[in-house]
Amino acid sequence: MTARQQAVTVLGLGSMGSALAAALLDRGHPTTVWNRSPDKAQPLVERGACAAATPEAAIAAAPLVIACVLDYEALRTVVDPAAAALKGRTLVNLTSGSPEQAREAVAWAGSHGADYLDGAIMTTPPGVGDPAMMFLYSGSQELFETHRPILAALGDPLYLGADPGLASLYDAALLGLMWSTMTGWLHGTALVGAEGTAATDFTPVAIRWLTAVAGFLTTYAPQVDAGRYPGDDATVDVQIAAIGHLIHAAAARGIDNALPELLKTAMEKASAAGHGQDSYASLIEVLRSAPGD
Amino acid sequence: MTARQQAVTVLGLGSMGSALAAALLDRGHPTTVWNRSPDKAQPLVERGACAAATPEAAIAAAPLVIACVLDYEALRTVVDPAAAALKGRTLVNLTSGSPEQAREAVAWAGSHGADYLDGAIMTTPPGVGDPAMMFLYSGSQELFETHRPILAALGDPLYLGADPGLASLYDAALLGLMWSTMTGWLHGTALVGAEGTAATDFTPVAIRWLTAVAGFLTTYAPQVDAGRYPGDDATVDVQIAAIGHLIHAAAARGIDNALPELLKTAMEKASAAGHGQDSYASLIEVLRSAPGD
Ligand SMILES: NC(=O)c1ccc[n+]([C@@H]2O[C@H](COP(=O)([O-])OP(=O)(O)OC[C@H]3O[C@@H](n4cnc5c(N)ncnc54)[C@H](OP(=O)(O)O)[C@@H]3O)[C@@H](O)[C@H]2O)c1
Ligand SMILES: NC(=O)c1ccc[n+]([C@@H]2O[C@H](COP(=O)([O-])OP(=O)(O)OC[C@H]3O[C@@H](n4cnc5c(N)ncnc54)[C@H](OP(=O)(O)O)[C@@H]3O)[C@@H](O)[C@H]2O)c1
Repeated sequence: MTARQQAVTVLGLGSMGSALAAALLDRGHPTTVWNRSPDKAQPLVERGACAAATPEAAIAAAPLVIACVLDYEALRTVVDPAAAALKGRTLVNLTSGSPEQAREAVAWAGSHGADYLDGAIMTTPPGVGDPAMMFLYSGSQELFETHRPILAALGDPLYLGADPGLASLYDAALLGLMWSTMTGWLHGTALVGAEGTAATDFTPVAIRWLTAVAGFLTTYAPQVDAGRYPGDDATVDVQIAAIGHLIHAAAARGIDNALPELLKTAMEKASAAGHGQDSYASLIEVLRSAPGD
Repeated sequence: MTARQQAVTVLGLGSMGSALAAALLDRGHPTTVWNRSPDKAQPLVERGACAAATPEAAIAAAPLVIACVLDYEALRTVVDPAAAALKGRTLVNLTSGSPEQAREAVAWAGSHGADYLDGAIMTTPPGVGDPAMMFLYSGSQELFETHRPILAALGDPLYLGADPGLASLYDAALLGLMWSTMTGWLHGTALVGAEGTAATDFTPVAIRWLTAVAGFLTTYAPQVDAGRYPGDDATVDVQIAAIGHLIHAAAARGIDNALPELLKTAMEKASAAGHGQDSYASLIEVLRSAPGD
């Protein structure tokens, strides 16, 4: 049996679950679906899915069950009454949650004789099925390797490690990076926008600049691991001087400076802690210590 | 005369000015250099540069003069006494400063019969000469086009517009994006690091994720220009729920949450202003209004 022909079940047909089921159907997998509100199965049935009347019936239809509902509370509501049906099957949970919830879910699945892999989806529904998009997985590596061919239908599957909490932990860390980046971009967009530059003109330059910034991260990552931050390229004290210009320019144009002020404070704390001549990576020492305000 | 053979002068041989002069020498430009502390010219003289004894003598040696000193105050100290020598020449100023300072410098140069182009260097000294690195320019487009072949020796020259303040404005906006991104990355690195993940393991995933984030920026830029932010992919309210998970996970691991707390506050302000069902791009409305705290 090739991966193409392997049967899969999807529990939960919100905007994300529906995208997952559609991607599986696109790759030719016999796909059984179930959703609390049954009408959401209809568009998928029209594309060839089989709609099951209950979670039990859906689970019984395939050795691999992918769940994607609102949260872990919803997940328990769906799978608790159907736990017996999961015996001998694999549950891949793509519902967002905390590392602790993922660890509890492994134990719960094990107590019912089921295998469990935790996952996190690093894209929005329109990105599902695009091999450029990352799907993060953690838990048993053997389990991951077994199901990797089917999981590859959803996006590029990345295995993070045996601790089932890792996918959720990375998810939180990466979303934090996303919000920081998007807010920094919006602040910059507001700044150049105050002088009449369109966001669509600034953004391609900003995106190109992010490639250079990615190069800085690559330089800084081994510094973080070594706990030594040589400031060869640019020191924290130099950045403190430069962020003063940004704050001044933004204030003069009526733009909220809460974000750069916070970043400046973090830089100043690092400098006060003796990292003035170190690289920006030394700010991790400040982030790791207990909140000072 | 081809660009290769054209003479250039560099004023200021700090770590950046020295890198600029070296890149010009590498491309075969006859290069004259000057620095306040003359010893810094020595390594460049060994690579073929001509060291001038005064700014006047240096300026007289070439039709194009590139200045890169600490700040505008230092620039005035250097060029004011040599202003007469600049007549009929072009001064390209790569010293960091504010948009206002760039605009004043154009007027100053004009009053001395000199042409002036303002620039900002979007890399560190080791990146100078790499065509992947951006050098931003603003001011007269004709002037830019005339000197583009020489400027291309330093990095990829990008022309932003006739307002000479644009290069400095973009510089501030892009550095703000850099600090936000680097701090978000450090926060995420601290989070996964608390569970034993090395920064060098997390960072390649983070960099790949930044590519997906760049896709979101491309989606959001026209929303900003239109002033309408359809929340088709993910709404502000959904992000508020998700950032709660990050804050919880980071707090449980003793990581400073000032940054995500600030981001959450900005999201909540946007939601309170009626953007709960809009995309993240709607936060620009909050940033543009006067600071609320
Ligand atoms: N959308 C994204 O961009 C995205 C990206 C990454 C991760 N995710 C994650 O994917 C998961 C699903 O997100 P979504 O966008 O699909 O959300 P959604 O469109 O709001 O769908 C929520 C799903 O959960 C079901 N559900 C909620 N409460 C339930 C309960 N008590 N019992 C049974 N089913 C229940 C809903 O069933 P009904 O149809 O009956 O209401 C629906 O199938 C979430 O954990 C989300 O964080 C989403
Ligand atoms: N380094 C970077 O990564 C980077 C990146 C982008 C932009 N920049 C910008 O490039 C410019 C130069 O930076 P840098 O890294 O080369 O700094 P740097 O290594 O500290 O060099 C400063 C330069 O300014 C000169 N200078 C300072 N005060 C002076 C004065 N009163 N009169 C005459 N000369 C004076 C210094 O001369 P002495 O040698 O005699 O002290 C030296 O040539 C700055 O505006 C900086 O923001 C730097």
